[in-house]
Amino acid sequence: MSIPSKIDFINTVARVSPYVHQTPVVTSRLLNEISGTQLYFKCENFQKMGAFKMRGAVNAILQLSDVQKQSGVVTHSSGNFAQAVSLAAKNLNIPAYIVMPSNAPKVKVDAVKSYGGKITISKPTIESREEEAAKIQEQTGATFLHPSNNMDVILGQGTAAFELLDKHPDLDVIATPVGGGGLLAGTAVAAHYFGNNCQIIAGEPFEADDAFRSLEAGIIQYNETANTVADGLRTHLGNHNFPIIQELVSQIIRVEEDEIIAAMRLLWERLKIIIEPSCAVPFAAILREKEQFKGKKIGIILSGGNVDLSNLPF
Amino acid sequence: MSIPSKIDFINTVARVSPYVHQTPVVTSRLLNEISGTQLYFKCENFQKMGAFKMRGAVNAILQLSDVQKQSGVVTHSSGNFAQAVSLAAKNLNIPAYIVMPSNAPKVKVDAVKSYGGKITISKPTIESREEEAAKIQEQTGATFLHPSNNMDVILGQGTAAFELLDKHPDLDVIATPVGGGGLLAGTAVAAHYFGNNCQIIAGEPFEADDAFRSLEAGIIQYNETANTVADGLRTHLGNHNFPIIQELVSQIIRVEEDEIIAAMRLLWERLKIIIEPSCAVPFAAILREKEQFKGKKIGIILSGGNVDLSNLPF
Repeated sequence: MSIPSKIDFINTVARVSPYVHQTPVVTSRLLNEISGTQLYFKCENFQKMGAFKMRGAVNAILQLSDVQKQSGVVTHSSGNFAQAVSLAAKNLNIPAYIVMPSNAPKVKVDAVKSYGGKITISKPTIESREEEAAKIQEQTGATFLHPSNNMDVILGQGTAAFELLDKHPDLDVIATPVGGGGLLAGTAVAAHYFGNNCQIIAGEPFEADDAFRSLEAGIIQYNETANTVADGLRTHLGNHNFPIIQELVSQIIRVEEDEIIAAMRLLWERLKIIIEPSCAVPFAAILREKEQFKGKKIGIILSGGNVDLSNLPF
Repeated sequence: MSIPSKIDFINTVARVSPYVHQTPVVTSRLLNEISGTQLYFKCENFQKMGAFKMRGAVNAILQLSDVQKQSGVVTHSSGNFAQAVSLAAKNLNIPAYIVMPSNAPKVKVDAVKSYGGKITISKPTIESREEEAAKIQEQTGATFLHPSNNMDVILGQGTAAFELLDKHPDLDVIATPVGGGGLLAGTAVAAHYFGNNCQIIAGEPFEADDAFRSLEAGIIQYNETANTVADGLRTHLGNHNFPIIQELVSQIIRVEEDEIIAAMRLLWERLKIIIEPSCAVPFAAILREKEQFKGKKIGIILSGGNVDLSNLPF
């Protein structure tokens, strides 16, 4: 049993809350009509640095010893976790070393720079990222923070769902995207302790459906390619979050690229908020499986809003 | 003296409030840093149908007699007021006839249709719009509602600034865009009665600077052309709102098209919300006149969020 305890989760909420925004939850009558459900969107696009990843980064950094803090932290990330670690580290006045793949969106690279993160560019493969991060770790003594496969990060990400359930304790379903698995696992832990029979589902692009295949196979699977517009979802699960997902997540629904783009556009037009393509994936999943969710109260974690406006998919 | 009384204004707030969203006010540390001011953005992009114009439309329609309501209402508008009248009329189950210019953004025409407004397309001139509206008025007996030069509409638009001042009574300045003048005049009335020495300013595109020239000349001026990205600001002032603006507005600041687009992009990227180009005009004005506003607490009415995503200026 690898599920963190309720007391660990509550301690995380207490630790993280002072350092993050308690983001709003928005609704739309028209989107309810279109989906045949009642939707509650948790707006982590309004979180500090523009994504839920601030929560996990804050929690992981706050758990370091004073000695560890002196040597700083290092991570690799396609974007949002890099910003989160940079900003959290800046606020605590410790160095942050960030490995970013060469295909990371420019808006995210610029943001990391603006938060004072020291950037190393890697090849756009997981292997190259990990290699560069290991080098830095060795040279500087910095503590490595994994963007999704770290229990403190997982617990931190779960605090968004905790806030959502605190406002809407009777949700039938909470849906998140799944990339590295940190948000999904954290959300599942929150709902396990604070939901009322709340089912946890995830949306995933067909183009990067490693998590779906992992659940089917019972062992972690990888993506050979990941040509999806949902740039936050190109990574794979890890040994800390996979067992939680296996135990607590009821299904992963895969969606096509055109479904993701249409869902993203609908959210922009109707909610008047800016969200990343990855955020649109769970909403696209609900629209794809309308019959299954008819009449249900569904929370959706809108994971982030860091979009390159010069490179929109519509 | 053509300024509506305080009691008329208070009655308007009481009449309109149950039918509109009390929209949130958002802030951004980074935008404060960039501008050297403290900015409070009143998010009318989250208003019903996506713009402040819902307020004026609701107020004007609620003031009709039962007999008038039976014959319905007619208006001409480049977009947001058309949607507002359509939606308010739909909610009250009365017919709405809408004249829209042939260059109105598609997203706005579609929205009017979805709210059940009966559309007539006119040439893209004020004269053609007015002609078509007069014809419909004659044929149907519908009451004509002017988008900006109608005292009930002006009072209704002012309720956004009332809510803003209710939350932040110590604002030094409130800034709005100026197109037809309804929002600016209504905001000025609200600040006159509920502000604490609160200065009212407006932003206006150089490309459609009729309001600036009207204040200079002391008589209403018109635009010969209006080639501005701020499509909501192509119209001119009227005899009901101009005297209020003359009396209560301290200055109109003109901005270039590239300043509007840069300001719009900055608001999208930093606030993570979708706003129309027109909304960016007062913010662009503050940035242009930074020295003048240094250290001040400034409210900005973000007037709407109905943007054609297929036709963005960046």
